[in-house]
Amino acid sequence: MVDKKKPTIHDVARVSGKSLGTISRVLNEHPSVSIKARAAVEEAIKKLGYTPNAIAASLRTRSTKLIGMMVTDLSNPLFAIMANTAENLLQESGYSLIIANTHDNSDAEVMLIELFIKRKLDGLILSLHDEKNPKLEKILKSISVPVVLLDREMSLPFDAVMTDHEHGMRQAVEYLLGLGHTRIGLVTVSELASPGRGRIQGYAKAYENAGIEFDKNLVRCGSLDADFGYQEAISLLGLSGPPTALIAGGNQILPGILRALTRLEISIPDDISLISCDDTPLSELSKPAITVIDRDISSIGTAAAKLLLRRLEGSDDGGARQVVLDTDLVLRASCGRRDD
Amino acid sequence: MVDKKKPTIHDVARVSGKSLGTISRVLNEHPSVSIKARAAVEEAIKKLGYTPNAIAASLRTRSTKLIGMMVTDLSNPLFAIMANTAENLLQESGYSLIIANTHDNSDAEVMLIELFIKRKLDGLILSLHDEKNPKLEKILKSISVPVVLLDREMSLPFDAVMTDHEHGMRQAVEYLLGLGHTRIGLVTVSELASPGRGRIQGYAKAYENAGIEFDKNLVRCGSLDADFGYQEAISLLGLSGPPTALIAGGNQILPGILRALTRLEISIPDDISLISCDDTPLSELSKPAITVIDRDISSIGTAAAKLLLRRLEGSDDGGARQVVLDTDLVLRASCGRRDD
Repeated sequence: MVDKKKPTIHDVARVSGKSLGTISRVLNEHPSVSIKARAAVEEAIKKLGYTPNAIAASLRTRSTKLIGMMVTDLSNPLFAIMANTAENLLQESGYSLIIANTHDNSDAEVMLIELFIKRKLDGLILSLHDEKNPKLEKILKSISVPVVLLDREMSLPFDAVMTDHEHGMRQAVEYLLGLGHTRIGLVTVSELASPGRGRIQGYAKAYENAGIEFDKNLVRCGSLDADFGYQEAISLLGLSGPPTALIAGGNQILPGILRALTRLEISIPDDISLISCDDTPLSELSKPAITVIDRDISSIGTAAAKLLLRRLEGSDDGGARQVVLDTDLVLRASCGRRDD
Repeated sequence: MVDKKKPTIHDVARVSGKSLGTISRVLNEHPSVSIKARAAVEEAIKKLGYTPNAIAASLRTRSTKLIGMMVTDLSNPLFAIMANTAENLLQESGYSLIIANTHDNSDAEVMLIELFIKRKLDGLILSLHDEKNPKLEKILKSISVPVVLLDREMSLPFDAVMTDHEHGMRQAVEYLLGLGHTRIGLVTVSELASPGRGRIQGYAKAYENAGIEFDKNLVRCGSLDADFGYQEAISLLGLSGPPTALIAGGNQILPGILRALTRLEISIPDDISLISCDDTPLSELSKPAITVIDRDISSIGTAAAKLLLRRLEGSDDGGARQVVLDTDLVLRASCGRRDD
């Protein structure tokens, strides 16, 4: 069933009656080929089922029309939404998106960026685990293709799509303080990356503005997964002075906190108030529905693709640009007044 | 900041004092290089920060150590879990996984497989939208690298990891029939791919075994997304003889059905019984928690990677192999007795 004899460029020359030079120009989309010659070559290629050796071709053209996206955790649905919207725009300009997963591992990040460079990708969209990793800085310093960072800050002059996490968290904590909560537990991602730092700064700022000192033991930074959320919620609720409100500082932390509340038979909002970050089916459809610090995730992908395309199409060779997204506090039934 | 003068293989020769031939053998991991010569070359490479041209290198070695995975919808968390576990195993053998998203689009599937072939990937893991698409069959027929299909049946001799969706759905419908439900609505994915067909066959089989004829209007096949779930649930519940139980035939259909029930103020399990497919935080943490047809998603990724590695390492050149996963019905509080 498998056709063993693969057609070569010489077969294309024989069938089309055109020279290897003409065929090469057609394959490389060189403008100086007549319409007639192009048609003859394309017909021969189609007839023979000839596949040009893309590796050899890209040695000549130096463009692979591939964009690489690196994410810290593919199971986070936010990345899939960003990838989808970025891809839609990139495809319109003839680029394909390939995605690699680093599992929040700094070594994997370095290895995959090396791979992307070696494979001559045309541009990179990066969500990094540790934006201060010196090995990563070193390799990214020497990169010659455009890079867009997702929600990360580096000392290198890359374009970036950021979210104002500080503002979002400050607003959420101010709302809870306004409801009378003074012991607010926050479980969020590590401070190695900008979202973790921004959220903690916003939390501290809200307390500072209210003139209240906060208990540092109520802030737990580590990772963005459900297990971390579960474990820290159990720990926080077991304190002698437990929090009266919790904030899941990441959409994947939420299921862990909900599991802990179910296990301890603590009900929302009577026993505890709860706020999460980024709206998901779980926050929307929980009973009661959960107040969230929301943002337009799909616009992150669109903004990243736009920044990249401006560089790729040569319409932007200026300094690094930053697009900063705002957040909204979407109020639902998961927060109650606390007057003690 | 960017070092413009990139070191070449000639710089490596100069610094290491070794010939281009020796350096090439080191780069290609050729066995006939002395330990001393290898060390000298590697030290020079490190010192210079030399990056071999991987495209040229792969022209020589014919192996890219890259596996491509194609998924129909990256925002489906099941694919992320499969990708994670497949990747863990593949990495142990020195392969990297890159992922591409087809958005359930047959043309994108053909385009991306062409891309994977052109880029000389070493193997493919494919979840296809339409397993009968003739264009897809044609291109896959001529493929020379190993392919593993995820939950798909083709006439081509590829390895596959399947799930016994028919058995899972039959068990769920039999359970509901046993509770006295005779009008069971099913919302599931299109019949173009094996999971949709399997689920519908299982549904029909359960009714057949019980000697009850089912109303074809209660079975809605289309897509795996929440909007389809919402729209079909609204339609089913608006029938003059509405179903007394609903099955979400896909984890992403569930949020759509839950939105419809919330909108119509229909409560689970008093007004309607509900079963979903594949356990997610939403099915687990809904109130009440939702009965699911469950399977071990992570073992799908592991099985796919194992099948691929057997071919890549040459330990299996026999005919196509199929691994079939079983499902379990996980009983929760979302189903009630119906005696009318």
